[in-house]
Amino acid sequence: MSKVNIKVLADQLHLSVSTISKALRDSHEISDETKKKVQEMATRLNYVPNPYASSLRRKKSKTIAVVLPEVADNFFSLAINGIQSVAETKGYHVLIYLSHDKYANEKTILEDCQSGRVDGVLISISSETNSADNINKLQENNIPVVFFDREQEGIEAARVTTNDFECGFMAANLLLKKGCHKPAFVSISESLPLLLNRIKGFKAALSKAGIPEQDMQIIYCTDNDSMYSQIKLLLQSDQRPDGLIASVEKIVTPVYLACHELHINIPNDIKVIAFATLDTAPILNPPLTTITQPAFEIGKAAATLLFKGIEKSTFDLSKERLIIPSVLIERAST
Amino acid sequence: MSKVNIKVLADQLHLSVSTISKALRDSHEISDETKKKVQEMATRLNYVPNPYASSLRRKKSKTIAVVLPEVADNFFSLAINGIQSVAETKGYHVLIYLSHDKYANEKTILEDCQSGRVDGVLISISSETNSADNINKLQENNIPVVFFDREQEGIEAARVTTNDFECGFMAANLLLKKGCHKPAFVSISESLPLLLNRIKGFKAALSKAGIPEQDMQIIYCTDNDSMYSQIKLLLQSDQRPDGLIASVEKIVTPVYLACHELHINIPNDIKVIAFATLDTAPILNPPLTTITQPAFEIGKAAATLLFKGIEKSTFDLSKERLIIPSVLIERAST
Repeated sequence: MSKVNIKVLADQLHLSVSTISKALRDSHEISDETKKKVQEMATRLNYVPNPYASSLRRKKSKTIAVVLPEVADNFFSLAINGIQSVAETKGYHVLIYLSHDKYANEKTILEDCQSGRVDGVLISISSETNSADNINKLQENNIPVVFFDREQEGIEAARVTTNDFECGFMAANLLLKKGCHKPAFVSISESLPLLLNRIKGFKAALSKAGIPEQDMQIIYCTDNDSMYSQIKLLLQSDQRPDGLIASVEKIVTPVYLACHELHINIPNDIKVIAFATLDTAPILNPPLTTITQPAFEIGKAAATLLFKGIEKSTFDLSKERLIIPSVLIERAST
Repeated sequence: MSKVNIKVLADQLHLSVSTISKALRDSHEISDETKKKVQEMATRLNYVPNPYASSLRRKKSKTIAVVLPEVADNFFSLAINGIQSVAETKGYHVLIYLSHDKYANEKTILEDCQSGRVDGVLISISSETNSADNINKLQENNIPVVFFDREQEGIEAARVTTNDFECGFMAANLLLKKGCHKPAFVSISESLPLLLNRIKGFKAALSKAGIPEQDMQIIYCTDNDSMYSQIKLLLQSDQRPDGLIASVEKIVTPVYLACHELHINIPNDIKVIAFATLDTAPILNPPLTTITQPAFEIGKAAATLLFKGIEKSTFDLSKERLIIPSVLIERAST
């Protein structure tokens, strides 16, 4: 008996090869009625998918998408380098899409990714995102997705992150150890799981030190343009903190500038620690203590995982979780 | 008489619409013989191209490519934001390709851009590039190209740059005015026109001050990994400069670190000025004097020009040249 392939199914049902292929992949483009017909014929003729042929059919773009909030942050530029180091060995192109931290942009980008333009998606979500619909649709279309750094909760998907809770704890603990009594945490989003985890860690450390919940200062600077004035207000308030954790890199310059302007000495009047992969951290005035995320490694691990999903359709990517720890580097700012 | 369109030509010549279209665009895919036949028929039937239809046929990807050496440099991240600000209003996608400053990568990327995947290309060339072949091929395929920042010489193409010669002159002049007698220029490439122009400006200023050619120190750090040790060697040499111009951003951290390690005081022992759009320049120790390129504006202007080329096939993009001046910001490092 000759091998039953998609072509045979197509001939038997008087449908196109592409329709059969899509029906077998449960594509939304194909009606339920047609899917049923195709399934029945496949069962009757004992059709077994040829993984190699299927791979050839499905993976023809040789391109992956990387969806990022921005590139001005060193974390993301280093992560891109990590991703490209893997993609190059696989002979893949890397398309970089920027959401500019807006959910609406991210939605358009992910819809575009469904078109077959890419074979897989690596994403670090925008700080506005709180729906997993677009990711769900990609997965329904058999396009593998891996979250890196900024992940989305409430959806089964592969993730590569760092140990954010521990890092929040570690940062707060260092400030307390250095004599701070009222450290503050500056965040840029009220919903990003990564930042919420860092805040949880911060709170846990303060709690352990006997600081009551109502004295834990958490400031949300969700708007870039008003970040400087918000930080200045914080530093001029009666509740002026004696320690500050910058949850992302872009908070550092406004904090230093505001301290300089208000003649608040770092580290004597306020100790500062930042989540940052800033190249210039050791040459700042004063040199900045950082929690440095393994950006290159996170990008590399996420890409490696994605290619596993692209290459092996039988591999269930969605259960994968990888946590690569960050490193505390103490400098003069604390 | 009914309107003569491509379909009419195709019917008359028993060729496909796509062949006619390609022949009229002088595509390399079509033989000279066929092109001649098509041209003759077009002339005989008085065919006038419909720019709107032609635009619809040609511009279907709604995507532009941005080819960059890297994203870790703030200049490029800001330029991307400028480009996207224009692309968004046009409803275009922006694909970002990184050459990692390697000619071989750039070649692969530009070949991919010929496939119809993009409607236009914005490029800042790698520091290794010294052939214009790939750009020529794009233009032959009627894909508009605009150079921004790092341009390629020896090819007629649109360019958006900054006033590099004047800036090199201005930087050297500031150092001389501040009392330097033997300033050095640190470059990362021996071939990039942009850096050669900055060096020309540097030399012109020194020449004007009566410094002989053989005393003009120009150091080439073409390898990232050895940059720090090369700079340390320079600072330890008998010819130690009393002023230093960092031609790109990534030179700044190694210079500051080497000075700190060797107990060379900035600005007392050596004055430092950098071509940089570094966010952290004002909070460095000491704050860094910069020649700040209008990165966002360069990106925006380059994209605006590219869309003019994409939208109007009659517009001769290749003659366009735009120079947007940089700004000198004096801080404590000089």
